[in-house]
Amino acid sequence: MKVQLLTIGDELLIGQIVDTNSAWMARQLNAIGAQVVGKETVADTAGEIVAERQRGVGKADVGLVTGWLGTIRDDVTKKALADFYEEGFVFSQETFDHITRFMTRLGREPSDSHRTQCFMPQNAALLHNRMGTAPGMWFDEKGKVVVSMPGVPYEMEYLMEVEVLPRLQKRFPGSPIIHHTILTAGEGESRIAERISEIEDNLPNEVKLAYLPGLGQVRLRLTARGENEGHLRRLLDQEARKIQETLPDIIYGQGEETLEQVIGVLLQQRNWLLSTAESCTGGYLAHRITTIAGSSAYYKGSVVAYSNELKTKLLEVSKETLDEFGAVSEETVREMVAGALKLLGTDVAVTISGIAGPDGGTPEKPVGTIWVAVGTKENVQTYHLQLGKDRLKNIQYTAIAALNFLRKFLLEE
Amino acid sequence: MKVQLLTIGDELLIGQIVDTNSAWMARQLNAIGAQVVGKETVADTAGEIVAERQRGVGKADVGLVTGWLGTIRDDVTKKALADFYEEGFVFSQETFDHITRFMTRLGREPSDSHRTQCFMPQNAALLHNRMGTAPGMWFDEKGKVVVSMPGVPYEMEYLMEVEVLPRLQKRFPGSPIIHHTILTAGEGESRIAERISEIEDNLPNEVKLAYLPGLGQVRLRLTARGENEGHLRRLLDQEARKIQETLPDIIYGQGEETLEQVIGVLLQQRNWLLSTAESCTGGYLAHRITTIAGSSAYYKGSVVAYSNELKTKLLEVSKETLDEFGAVSEETVREMVAGALKLLGTDVAVTISGIAGPDGGTPEKPVGTIWVAVGTKENVQTYHLQLGKDRLKNIQYTAIAALNFLRKFLLEE
Repeated sequence: MKVQLLTIGDELLIGQIVDTNSAWMARQLNAIGAQVVGKETVADTAGEIVAERQRGVGKADVGLVTGWLGTIRDDVTKKALADFYEEGFVFSQETFDHITRFMTRLGREPSDSHRTQCFMPQNAALLHNRMGTAPGMWFDEKGKVVVSMPGVPYEMEYLMEVEVLPRLQKRFPGSPIIHHTILTAGEGESRIAERISEIEDNLPNEVKLAYLPGLGQVRLRLTARGENEGHLRRLLDQEARKIQETLPDIIYGQGEETLEQVIGVLLQQRNWLLSTAESCTGGYLAHRITTIAGSSAYYKGSVVAYSNELKTKLLEVSKETLDEFGAVSEETVREMVAGALKLLGTDVAVTISGIAGPDGGTPEKPVGTIWVAVGTKENVQTYHLQLGKDRLKNIQYTAIAALNFLRKFLLEE
Repeated sequence: MKVQLLTIGDELLIGQIVDTNSAWMARQLNAIGAQVVGKETVADTAGEIVAERQRGVGKADVGLVTGWLGTIRDDVTKKALADFYEEGFVFSQETFDHITRFMTRLGREPSDSHRTQCFMPQNAALLHNRMGTAPGMWFDEKGKVVVSMPGVPYEMEYLMEVEVLPRLQKRFPGSPIIHHTILTAGEGESRIAERISEIEDNLPNEVKLAYLPGLGQVRLRLTARGENEGHLRRLLDQEARKIQETLPDIIYGQGEETLEQVIGVLLQQRNWLLSTAESCTGGYLAHRITTIAGSSAYYKGSVVAYSNELKTKLLEVSKETLDEFGAVSEETVREMVAGALKLLGTDVAVTISGIAGPDGGTPEKPVGTIWVAVGTKENVQTYHLQLGKDRLKNIQYTAIAALNFLRKFLLEE
């Protein structure tokens, strides 16, 4: 099944909103073996473009349209779709009843614009939207399926999961695409490409390899396309195994795993408690760790010591160390480990001190100089990073690098 | 000047990467008065589609193409562009010299694939890329400008800022579009729409209003299009003033300002130091505050007390309070303020305790129950939030709400 995505909205075209809907939809569609062949964004005043592109579902079997079907804006999408199918509108009592119940729960009454909203293209099957007032619309004619949904992420996600994906799977029982993603941290794309060039040069025809670099991480995505799912699965497993044997030092997981999850598992296996003490990352490391539900089982907390005074008062970094080596130094992060272990009462601690920028650098310690330490009472490891001048990137990269240092430290303990 | 964006890349179509380039480009283009009329993403194997869409720059004056021009993948874009213009390739010694210097700095030598990469369409003006090996390409023929750039964000951004935007401004001296964005926090889209419905119904023809809802915040974007910039500016100022007079309680800033910046200014005006103590937000509030360069001037740090033990030990929340009211209670966040002010030595503190979810709720305190306090030694205000079940959304919404409570608290002090 080939799918074309169409999103409608001025806010996307002037760049005030990043289109996260499309990526979410593409992931879900891939998971059911559908191939997204293209995606497009048009202005919400461009009714004629909508219709034109619907005709241009073209080589695809399915067109998925998201855009504003709410009460505030004009309903461009609906009209364009009906024009395309040359059908009239009928009043949907079912939709009006739903809107009435929905508004009553909010202590309001349906308005005139709600009533207008209930005139639906005659040939659309309506998809019930529990998350909002506007239903989805399913058109299945001329050999193509076109589905129209609201653009509000949680409404679209609800409709996709509950209505659209199951219907598509039934309508287009298809030939499989399989992905396997290998997660690495701590090495760049080109260096990885060199290390696995022989594997890449000898991939079977059905298998493709893509490098997906992110901050401090590179995901390696193997994709297999063909007719026989069992065969594809075996090919993918075989190539994944080769890569894992070649890059054991930098691979931390597979698929949708995160570094944060992997660390949680390692800590729980050891029955260890973790704490952190951060300066330049300002709480971002603690945030990453606590994005995991249940992290309170192994994470006790953090001291964000943004001022030197707190480094001394709470983390017992000695005044002499700060005077002699400075707050951004190997010696300081080492003493912060001892301080954090004691103050927060844990088995292992990660500490960070650095110059996030864009100002505050010196010739000896330019912006982007970062020290990280990971340690227990018996053993402290320290790490030096030399990053760029972008404050937010430095914060994020450092937190990811620190998580990876912690992972390696735990594996060696 | 009308612009069509085209991004090339499988990783966008399978949803492993969110397309942030397009939003960035659209913002920059808007700022120079260009209108983005559409954007499209196609697979990086789809050479013929690229060429087809280039012809389809159609109603637009400019097509901006981003995609992989690196060493690892085949150079689909370049071929497709050259096919479109029916031109041959020439070897660019200048590009090869640049690549040689670039690789030498990395301690490497240019490879065969680098040499292949240097064959450029004959009719392209090459745009020097200091951030990587592949230059941008500028085609100006048949009345249309087409520019091809690498897809790596910092390379694309460099080329846009230094080469593409200045050239476009010279090539298409255009008629203006002006935006004015008003930033609100603490009220939903529909309620705001009700409060300013009279202003919205009577907007001048040249002016449009858009609601851009985000987590806990709604941006109101006024856009004016026309010929006379001075006139448009006056219209926009006049409508912005009306909205500001109608919504003084929820407007925190204009344009690109952030809540974090506004709070920094308010604290510095009062010469006050801030600290935080967080439980369920796990350091995210501290992170938001420290995204601002120079925040160390008014922010001393945070205690992320993820365990109850730390709430007692570090923040002096009494055992009786925890036993009687629980960690997620008005009484606890109130005591956390006193503890944070004392431990971290600041004038004002923000504290948070809640159940981020998805588990851990009880009938009396379901998931999403959050308490926030803001206070000085003399005056503590508390706030209750009842949110949903999505952990990450709860964390982010709470931090934004807490920043807004702090803003209002500071304004009243």
